[in-house]
Amino acid sequence: MIKTRITELFNIERPILQGGLMWISLAELTSAVVNAGGMGFITALTFPDPESLRTEIRRCREMTSRDFGINLTFLPTLRPPDYSSFIQVCIDEGIKFIETAGYNPEAYIDHIKSGGITVIHKCTSVRHALKAQEIGCDAVTIDGFEAAGHPGEDDVTSLVLVPLASDALRVPVVASGGFADGRGLVAALGLGADGINMGTRFAATKEAPVHENIKKTLVEHSELDTSLIMRTLGNTERVLRNPSVEKVLEIEGRGNATIEDIIPYVSGLVGKAMLEEGDVRRGILSAGQSMGLIHDIPSCRELMDRIMAQAEEVIREKFLQVLTSERGPETG
Amino acid sequence: MIKTRITELFNIERPILQGGLMWISLAELTSAVVNAGGMGFITALTFPDPESLRTEIRRCREMTSRDFGINLTFLPTLRPPDYSSFIQVCIDEGIKFIETAGYNPEAYIDHIKSGGITVIHKCTSVRHALKAQEIGCDAVTIDGFEAAGHPGEDDVTSLVLVPLASDALRVPVVASGGFADGRGLVAALGLGADGINMGTRFAATKEAPVHENIKKTLVEHSELDTSLIMRTLGNTERVLRNPSVEKVLEIEGRGNATIEDIIPYVSGLVGKAMLEEGDVRRGILSAGQSMGLIHDIPSCRELMDRIMAQAEEVIREKFLQVLTSERGPETG
Repeated sequence: MIKTRITELFNIERPILQGGLMWISLAELTSAVVNAGGMGFITALTFPDPESLRTEIRRCREMTSRDFGINLTFLPTLRPPDYSSFIQVCIDEGIKFIETAGYNPEAYIDHIKSGGITVIHKCTSVRHALKAQEIGCDAVTIDGFEAAGHPGEDDVTSLVLVPLASDALRVPVVASGGFADGRGLVAALGLGADGINMGTRFAATKEAPVHENIKKTLVEHSELDTSLIMRTLGNTERVLRNPSVEKVLEIEGRGNATIEDIIPYVSGLVGKAMLEEGDVRRGILSAGQSMGLIHDIPSCRELMDRIMAQAEEVIREKFLQVLTSERGPETG
Repeated sequence: MIKTRITELFNIERPILQGGLMWISLAELTSAVVNAGGMGFITALTFPDPESLRTEIRRCREMTSRDFGINLTFLPTLRPPDYSSFIQVCIDEGIKFIETAGYNPEAYIDHIKSGGITVIHKCTSVRHALKAQEIGCDAVTIDGFEAAGHPGEDDVTSLVLVPLASDALRVPVVASGGFADGRGLVAALGLGADGINMGTRFAATKEAPVHENIKKTLVEHSELDTSLIMRTLGNTERVLRNPSVEKVLEIEGRGNATIEDIIPYVSGLVGKAMLEEGDVRRGILSAGQSMGLIHDIPSCRELMDRIMAQAEEVIREKFLQVLTSERGPETG
């Protein structure tokens, strides 16, 4: 049992979050995480329209009696999704938690808050975390350099970002990027975080609705098998290295690459077809350095039980000496 | 009081190492670290010849009655330093600890060990750490992506490298790269390390024999102010970003850069003149991301007292709940 400001904020037993994973955090995964005592977020933009999200929320309600959250990612695009309607669906359906990500959600905060919803904003730097706090977010998730997907452009690692963020912020901080086991949870709490967020690790669970080949790929590859692409476009993604990624890196290496040059090789950046068909050689699969720490495909409950048990074991093994020596020589 | 395999191996009170810092870890700094209960290493290659190292060892003996170590870095060079004579000086002078770094020290291990010397090898990957263990090193320091100087070419962060190394190795592991305070020490121990190594943090102490401007620069700059140079040469260095570094990055960005193209701008890679004269605009200064966590210039003792006190405070604050809840509800 580890209580933190994050377990209180989300009314959960374990300080473990499954943030939004495009195409992956559907009702199956998110309900499994919340049923195991954590907090999960269904990605709204996985759905073509707000009514489809409503259907998914109702489907998830059938899988759990607990609260779960919705991820809303704000993208720079000429034709933005109908965020207001997605938010209204969340409010109508009694959603209590939203994870925002991507661009500054300021324009939508009042709408979200009007539904009494708690907001955690995911970002990649202390300055963006401070901005999120300023506009009223209740917590932040901070992604280190090691994270899958968008780790930002600063390349600062979780080990450095987390203590800096926890020094700078009043609101709780969730550490993200490089976390996959109980040792990481202990490290995150030691660094000042109130919990951990995991992406790649949750993609390699029984309940993740992706092709078995994808899960096996995450198990079989190591911390050395990710690459950063689209750095030259200022929109870096950490992904599994495969032939498509090698091609993108080659194009970027030539200089002056545009998104049009790259699109043919990433064949749908979000990798929906790959996730469904299981061909990991083509397209793009987000994967963090935590891949090196993934050795099996457990259920979410098995995974989270193990993380908590390992964290408690590490704390006893490493830190009991400090607490007992503090009490004086008679107990030493 | 935190006892680990590293405090036992070096017979020290605190699991904190000051690894070799070219031009910086002279007798003043190293004696201050060992007098404060850690282990420090004087860099042999700072000296032009083995007899100069002998003089420095004797100078350090006058500053401390405790054991200290010597760093021996193996470089790829056409005219290698006279490593055997440096080693013989260490043996003759009764040195008990050597930190090897750089290339595989296998050719020199028998000589070092013939003097009954304990060896810790600093490296940047699990595969190199395994090799070090195999050739007889007694411990390893593992540098993450966030580290100053040579973080290697894999770009794997301490958060991921440390648990992987501690899983893979029998010998103790020291975490290095991104560590500057007590929170980092707790994180390192939680991840499976037996101690931390600090470089940039020790360069910003009263006893570091560098110009005051250098120390102020480390205080005033943040985690965002480092760059990786010489990536294109396969010999990456993490350094403070300054006009010389911008120029090097520009040259590397053009492609096909050679060391000859770069040398004029780094004006002595090791930055001896910069350290002595304090002009941080020219030349190269190794600096890790931990720079963001450096806010003052304490003595080594003040720094290490503070790290230990903060570590113990964090352990009590975050983990006492786990240990007490484990004992049952009557103490909860």
